Amino acid sequence: MRAALMYAAGDVRVEAVADPTLERPTDAIVRVVRACVCGSDLHPYHSMPASPVGRQMGHEFLGVIEQTGSRVATVETGDLVLASFSSQDNSCEFCCAGVQTSCSHPESGLFSAAQAELVRVPLADGTLYPLPADADAALLASLLTLADVYGTGYHAAKMANVSAGDTVAVIGDGAVGLLAVLSARQLGAERIILMGRHRARTDLGLKYGATDVVPERGEKGVAAVRELTRGGAHKVLEAVGHRPAYDQAVGVVRAGGVISRVGVPQYDEASVGFASLFGRNITLTGGLAPVRAYVDELLPLVLDGSVDPGQVFDSTVALDEVPAAYRAMNDRSVLKALIAF
Amino acid sequence: MRAALMYAAGDVRVEAVADPTLERPTDAIVRVVRACVCGSDLHPYHSMPASPVGRQMGHEFLGVIEQTGSRVATVETGDLVLASFSSQDNSCEFCCAGVQTSCSHPESGLFSAAQAELVRVPLADGTLYPLPADADAALLASLLTLADVYGTGYHAAKMANVSAGDTVAVIGDGAVGLLAVLSARQLGAERIILMGRHRARTDLGLKYGATDVVPERGEKGVAAVRELTRGGAHKVLEAVGHRPAYDQAVGVVRAGGVISRVGVPQYDEASVGFASLFGRNITLTGGLAPVRAYVDELLPLVLDGSVDPGQVFDSTVALDEVPAAYRAMNDRSVLKALIAF
Repeated sequence: MRAALMYAAGDVRVEAVADPTLERPTDAIVRVVRACVCGSDLHPYHSMPASPVGRQMGHEFLGVIEQTGSRVATVETGDLVLASFSSQDNSCEFCCAGVQTSCSHPESGLFSAAQAELVRVPLADGTLYPLPADADAALLASLLTLADVYGTGYHAAKMANVSAGDTVAVIGDGAVGLLAVLSARQLGAERIILMGRHRARTDLGLKYGATDVVPERGEKGVAAVRELTRGGAHKVLEAVGHRPAYDQAVGVVRAGGVISRVGVPQYDEASVGFASLFGRNITLTGGLAPVRAYVDELLPLVLDGSVDPGQVFDSTVALDEVPAAYRAMNDRSVLKALIAF
Repeated sequence: MRAALMYAAGDVRVEAVADPTLERPTDAIVRVVRACVCGSDLHPYHSMPASPVGRQMGHEFLGVIEQTGSRVATVETGDLVLASFSSQDNSCEFCCAGVQTSCSHPESGLFSAAQAELVRVPLADGTLYPLPADADAALLASLLTLADVYGTGYHAAKMANVSAGDTVAVIGDGAVGLLAVLSARQLGAERIILMGRHRARTDLGLKYGATDVVPERGEKGVAAVRELTRGGAHKVLEAVGHRPAYDQAVGVVRAGGVISRVGVPQYDEASVGFASLFGRNITLTGGLAPVRAYVDELLPLVLDGSVDPGQVFDSTVALDEVPAAYRAMNDRSVLKALIAF
């Protein structure tokens, strides 16, 4: 089969690799129908040391089951299925508590080879979610967001306990930030301030329910939000992952409020002392999103068209064009690239 | 009047100072009946630079109103009243949201002169809570804990959302840690692991409802709790405030769990990245306790004897003996000293 491989920062190639095979009786092999490039794929695209051995990429996909192991019970060959970006048994204590990304099963983990024609799926029963066989091709983009970015934005809003009447600030106008806006709107936020400066993206944020856009960053951005909100936002959804975004979140959150992070932190330490969090009773929550937990709730809304999270894809490419898609996302001319097989 | 003043680390004196007077029509003057020394008073006792001008100390007290300003409406001269360690209007947006320590009133603040015969109380209507005039003298110690340590321990448990069936780890066997144990028990925790090594204190913790005591600290303590809980505690209540206690909290918390801090942090930065909080969806909450928020709920339990938080006082001194009380708390021969006037 063909797959996208990264060899170094800035160096993605599409090459022939060996087909994946069933390794355990709980595995399935899925022929990918839609995959995509994630903002988090850009981290190694910036920093990966050169390697003679390419590394397969990608963690978001949906497709048709090609083959199942002997102990796979809930899905079968020919089913159209959605994966979550993590594999899990969906039955252990942590999965049952809604923290599927901490599944205790030894075969659980994160996908890292989904920009490819075929993907081996461990723990297929807990990881693959059957989709209606007759799903309209036009819906596939929105369905694919349930594999990561929509579930991740929704996780930010859920962990912040966004509720009716809240003022919410969303930091970051990438796909996750925009879908955090959509999620905050679904949960009843009254005012949603999107902090971002890329016009096409913030315009989509306004369509998704943002009431205000603040393009300034850092101290100026903090001052603007504190002025708009007379003292800060009740809930701050941080969808970037860099330290300045954390500091911005601390700056714009209201006393007694919540910062919910879903941008994978590219830092270890940050301010948590009296002045930043403790003195004002700020709660810091969020984390690696257990998107599987939200599919039951969000899938019907995608299928009936009441939400359209697939608008975050502003480019569709073939597998061979994936290197160009990385370049375009890296220079911010594309928000998120869909890969159609 | 006489009052306790600190002149330097290790140097506390009781001296005559001017009586406080009404400064605003919303003030009251309270004649102190019971006050005490707080674990947090030991921070300046360790570190205060020498000063020719002594600094009055103390933030926990109850007493009898001596005088009220013209705009005080809910309490009057002669009332036995409890203060919270913070003064607040108890009517602003933040107070109504239960974050009284972030009261937006310009005269709100923290008490810092309660180890004295008289205290000026700003915003008396929002700060003083009337107690039954016939309160048994034997109850005064327990009532005084509502001014800080009981409310603070309760805040830790409430912010962690301790619920029936939870396994809770409490870090610290000081008065706040012990009352966090009591609070976790009240909220239905199934298992409460007290991390502390001072036998008399951990014995009181067992009386208050701890099911296990882990005396080890650091990596050994973390390993012991992870073994006892098969992977960590659902909720961790951190009642120390030093960085090693934070790291210990991160070590013992279960994936998807909560760390709730009420020990005033003596550090600014700490680990919040992928390995510590984010990857496991750990929530970090807590803060400077709005103890006023909990008086309505906890006072009846103290009055009817269903809880006895006053057991944290293992020494009673007169005002003149306060310097000795600081010494005894500093060398850990006394847990918490009550000052009876």
